[in-house]
Amino acid sequence: MIKNKMGNQTLTFSRKPVILSAASVVGKKEGEGPLSQWFDTTLEDDTFGEKTWEKSESKMLKTAMTEALRKSGRSKEDIGAMLSGDLLNQLMSSSFMARDMHIPFLGMYGACSTMTESLMLGAVLTDGQYSDNVIIGASSHYCTAERQFRMPLEHGNQRPPCAQWTATAAGAMVLSSSKDKDAKMITDEEGNTKTPSPVCVDCGTIGKVIDAGIKDANQMGAAMAPAAVDTLLNHFSDTGRDIDYYDLILTGDLGYIGKDIAKDLLVDAGLSQKSVDSRYDDCGAMIFIKEQDVHGGGSGCGCSASVFSSYVYKRMQKEELRKVLIISTGALLSTISPFQGESIPGIAHAIALETGQEGH
Amino acid sequence: MIKNKMGNQTLTFSRKPVILSAASVVGKKEGEGPLSQWFDTTLEDDTFGEKTWEKSESKMLKTAMTEALRKSGRSKEDIGAMLSGDLLNQLMSSSFMARDMHIPFLGMYGACSTMTESLMLGAVLTDGQYSDNVIIGASSHYCTAERQFRMPLEHGNQRPPCAQWTATAAGAMVLSSSKDKDAKMITDEEGNTKTPSPVCVDCGTIGKVIDAGIKDANQMGAAMAPAAVDTLLNHFSDTGRDIDYYDLILTGDLGYIGKDIAKDLLVDAGLSQKSVDSRYDDCGAMIFIKEQDVHGGGSGCGCSASVFSSYVYKRMQKEELRKVLIISTGALLSTISPFQGESIPGIAHAIALETGQEGH
Repeated sequence: MIKNKMGNQTLTFSRKPVILSAASVVGKKEGEGPLSQWFDTTLEDDTFGEKTWEKSESKMLKTAMTEALRKSGRSKEDIGAMLSGDLLNQLMSSSFMARDMHIPFLGMYGACSTMTESLMLGAVLTDGQYSDNVIIGASSHYCTAERQFRMPLEHGNQRPPCAQWTATAAGAMVLSSSKDKDAKMITDEEGNTKTPSPVCVDCGTIGKVIDAGIKDANQMGAAMAPAAVDTLLNHFSDTGRDIDYYDLILTGDLGYIGKDIAKDLLVDAGLSQKSVDSRYDDCGAMIFIKEQDVHGGGSGCGCSASVFSSYVYKRMQKEELRKVLIISTGALLSTISPFQGESIPGIAHAIALETGQEGH
Repeated sequence: MIKNKMGNQTLTFSRKPVILSAASVVGKKEGEGPLSQWFDTTLEDDTFGEKTWEKSESKMLKTAMTEALRKSGRSKEDIGAMLSGDLLNQLMSSSFMARDMHIPFLGMYGACSTMTESLMLGAVLTDGQYSDNVIIGASSHYCTAERQFRMPLEHGNQRPPCAQWTATAAGAMVLSSSKDKDAKMITDEEGNTKTPSPVCVDCGTIGKVIDAGIKDANQMGAAMAPAAVDTLLNHFSDTGRDIDYYDLILTGDLGYIGKDIAKDLLVDAGLSQKSVDSRYDDCGAMIFIKEQDVHGGGSGCGCSASVFSSYVYKRMQKEELRKVLIISTGALLSTISPFQGESIPGIAHAIALETGQEGH
């Protein structure tokens, strides 16, 4: 009998590892969007003082990791493993970040699902008592993604209205097997100072690869929505929970079109329209407003990574949100698979977070 | 206090998860090398009937996964997670393999260190009782790697003598939290039939990124050797073991030059030359002979994956080897980092395997 398993795809974290800290770094455009107040660092210049976009992205990720580490009160030597990934060929941002960090490193690739993949395995390592503390993260950059997957920016090509805007963003979190004993006080919406409520990882659902047959690399949301819905329905089936169990269910980067598709699929699967409307949202639809000229909405590993590490985490610390399911969503196409006639496989992993519990 | 940790970088697997089965698929050239008798499947044609090299590689990985699954006596539904990676941009081989397998999927990237990275996290998932069974694997293909990292084959360029030959190979293993109750009989070197001895995962050391400043992408062995040595010395320090504890210590793909560098570094670090000579070897130096015109020797994720899944695993089942430390080695350069003036970061993860124990 397996102790830490709940249904077919869901792992349960009975010791409820704590997310000690979270940090986010975003680009100029993201800092002008509706979530601007939540991010820790907003760049004034997306080069971040580096000579190539790849180095800029890597520096953003390193900044998020370093800041999460600082906030956690832990030193590098306290961290047993660093799990991180990005969209670049051979995880260039993460690999070069890891070179500077000197922390045992495990590279993750799940396209834009990387943040919850890293959280899943980070939670396993801490919950399973393999590491006291782990640090996880993910990043993306509009300029690196455009030139790798689409066209160099200098080409000035026109993007179709359904194309999503890769977020220039990085997020990082420190997970621990034990609560922070001297957490800094925070201020809630009414101006009251209080101890932040520990945000714990409750369980996680590992996704399967789902391919809906979409071949248009400008229709990422449509390619990923079926995978997000599959993982969510399997999560409900494995845990016996329903949509109303959560205050908020957030997909990673389906964008405006993918979010609408996911909502339709969820209602088709029997969920109430009212609950779906009130409890479900998508980071790619939240990080920008349409007037920012982002076409299909936000995407990229950094989109969900920065939204979880800022808006979600900080609101949970204040107990404005108590139970949240985050589902980063990835499109597993490669830089050459579309040229070989392949459709776009999708994947999504779900992580249930909770706060306000005396569970630890 | 952390139960499953042994020193700074080493995780201990106290329940000693079992590698139920292993399978390997190699190309024509690898099948003509000195390890030919150990591989399960040798291709006569490295296209494997596919129209692109990437699809050939993906099919090899899928074949290894399917064969490992068949040998394990488990069905797809019994497998809680599949952990796999390769060298291709966005893990094209693994992602498309995973699409066909319908098993919850976690993509790993550690360049050629992917096999031991996957084994590490697969062991954590089974030892920690998060999954009853997991399947892990890795692949590489000479033709996909050449055109992605160097030149298209059609270009016919000359390779420097130090350049390594990416192995066309895939390996897969099924890990389980419980021993196989009806393992098939095997035949030992004297022709005696016996029950195979269960091969268990004892502990693992997560590597740090080490960059020795090598900038020549044709000097992979030199770039990775310091990382392999760093991980090995940390493994000894964390576990209190020494080189003579193991019957065999195998690095992944340092090749002829990297192997010599690693040996020098180990002797410099105080290990006895005699022990290093007798107990240490490298998969990249074993999979080919120099007369096969492979220049610096074998490399690629599939090199260590196929050698561990065949030669090492089968000899351990027969107890010809009882304690083996496998250290897959990765060069974390990207397709564009050398053009941006970057040196090549190296990484290596170590996994200690043991057999002939009643430890389970």
